Amino acid sequence: MRFDIVTLFPEFFQTPLQVGLMAKAIARGIAEVRCTNPRDFTQDKHRRVDDEPYGGGVGMVLKPEPIFAAVESLPVLPRREVILTTPQGEPMSQQHFKDWANHCDQLVVLCGHYEGMDERVSHLVTREVSLGDFVLTGGEIPALALVNGVVRLLPGTVGKTASLEADSFEDGLLDYPHYTRPAVFRDWPVPQVLLSGNHAKIAQWRRAQQWERTRSRRPDLLEGLKGEVGSQEDSRDPSPGPKP
Amino acid sequence: MRFDIVTLFPEFFQTPLQVGLMAKAIARGIAEVRCTNPRDFTQDKHRRVDDEPYGGGVGMVLKPEPIFAAVESLPVLPRREVILTTPQGEPMSQQHFKDWANHCDQLVVLCGHYEGMDERVSHLVTREVSLGDFVLTGGEIPALALVNGVVRLLPGTVGKTASLEADSFEDGLLDYPHYTRPAVFRDWPVPQVLLSGNHAKIAQWRRAQQWERTRSRRPDLLEGLKGEVGSQEDSRDPSPGPKP
Repeated sequence: MRFDIVTLFPEFFQTPLQVGLMAKAIARGIAEVRCTNPRDFTQDKHRRVDDEPYGGGVGMVLKPEPIFAAVESLPVLPRREVILTTPQGEPMSQQHFKDWANHCDQLVVLCGHYEGMDERVSHLVTREVSLGDFVLTGGEIPALALVNGVVRLLPGTVGKTASLEADSFEDGLLDYPHYTRPAVFRDWPVPQVLLSGNHAKIAQWRRAQQWERTRSRRPDLLEGLKGEVGSQEDSRDPSPGPKP
Repeated sequence: MRFDIVTLFPEFFQTPLQVGLMAKAIARGIAEVRCTNPRDFTQDKHRRVDDEPYGGGVGMVLKPEPIFAAVESLPVLPRREVILTTPQGEPMSQQHFKDWANHCDQLVVLCGHYEGMDERVSHLVTREVSLGDFVLTGGEIPALALVNGVVRLLPGTVGKTASLEADSFEDGLLDYPHYTRPAVFRDWPVPQVLLSGNHAKIAQWRRAQQWERTRSRRPDLLEGLKGEVGSQEDSRDPSPGPKP
């Protein structure tokens, strides 16, 4: 898949794309990530990309012309989305990542900055997404999250697809707790059930932990599962075994 | 403020901290960001930081010893949080950023990886936060978002504090649309009211746009404002002027 990041700070992306699974996916040709700088598409000698807001107010607004020129300079692959990262967008979710990983050949990601972009950029954009209900200095971190989350789902990036199936949110619940050696670290032992070798009991315990955690930490996630809650809870062992 | 990022990929953070406002805040001494690698605290010759999960399952789990050793090697400033970035945490919000910017001297941020960390790391941690309901290859991007969002709020990072006061979410609503020159770009004019010079009308139009956008895009945000909705809506001009 091809990713085109439209950013005033292409150097931002240099080292994050050189480590871990992202670097491997790029080296294997699973993903191609290119940066395009709107500043390279300015016409004036000061290479200005921003200007004062109409109607007054603090901060500068990104001008529409360099953004349009940057996006219009890109090749157009068949299945393509042009995504603006902005706190005004719909919250990014795993479902977005899956849809894009499964159905797109190219994602063009526009990184916002300063006080925002001229609203007319919306004519270029097919989706507006938000990383979360907070404000960052720019759209580079949201763009990086988007690229990372989508590349991770492309075939070949993660070795075993079972790893993807065990993801948080994959079944609508939070993940269960993980433990590895040593069996006792300082005063804290691994829950006995995990050492039992009884796979049915382990699966029950993990499922119960998923429900317990989701209920206590993120009851909002259970709203979306309401139809399924009855049947899934019934399959749960009423005594889920020892806890840490 | 001091930030300590505990990460297996310290090189990830190199270029993102060298651009824009983050680079300026670091150069001015407003923020100090250090990376500590748990791998430097392993005792075996293979420098192993992960191991197989107890109870079976795919993927590897980060061992507790190198994480504890890395965190325990750090200086301890008076007002300190130790934060784990994990999809199982509470969703990160602007309120977290404000609390940390106002009340902390040091944030230690643990980046998760692979299938997760040994659960006993929770004994080190004072907060678990999630960037959003999606899965990334690791905790580096969430850590970067956290550092960026907090540094942005530290005095001196953003030139005018009025810029911070105009933030999205600052009043619980999404931002209004921004426009800059040219007054007509391609076929799209700037809304007439913004060219009027009538500051009261402009303020009314912007406020109406904030309500309109929040209602259509993020009705969930209005839930939290319920007590205030009546009074705020009453102060809104019923005919908010021309729209694009």
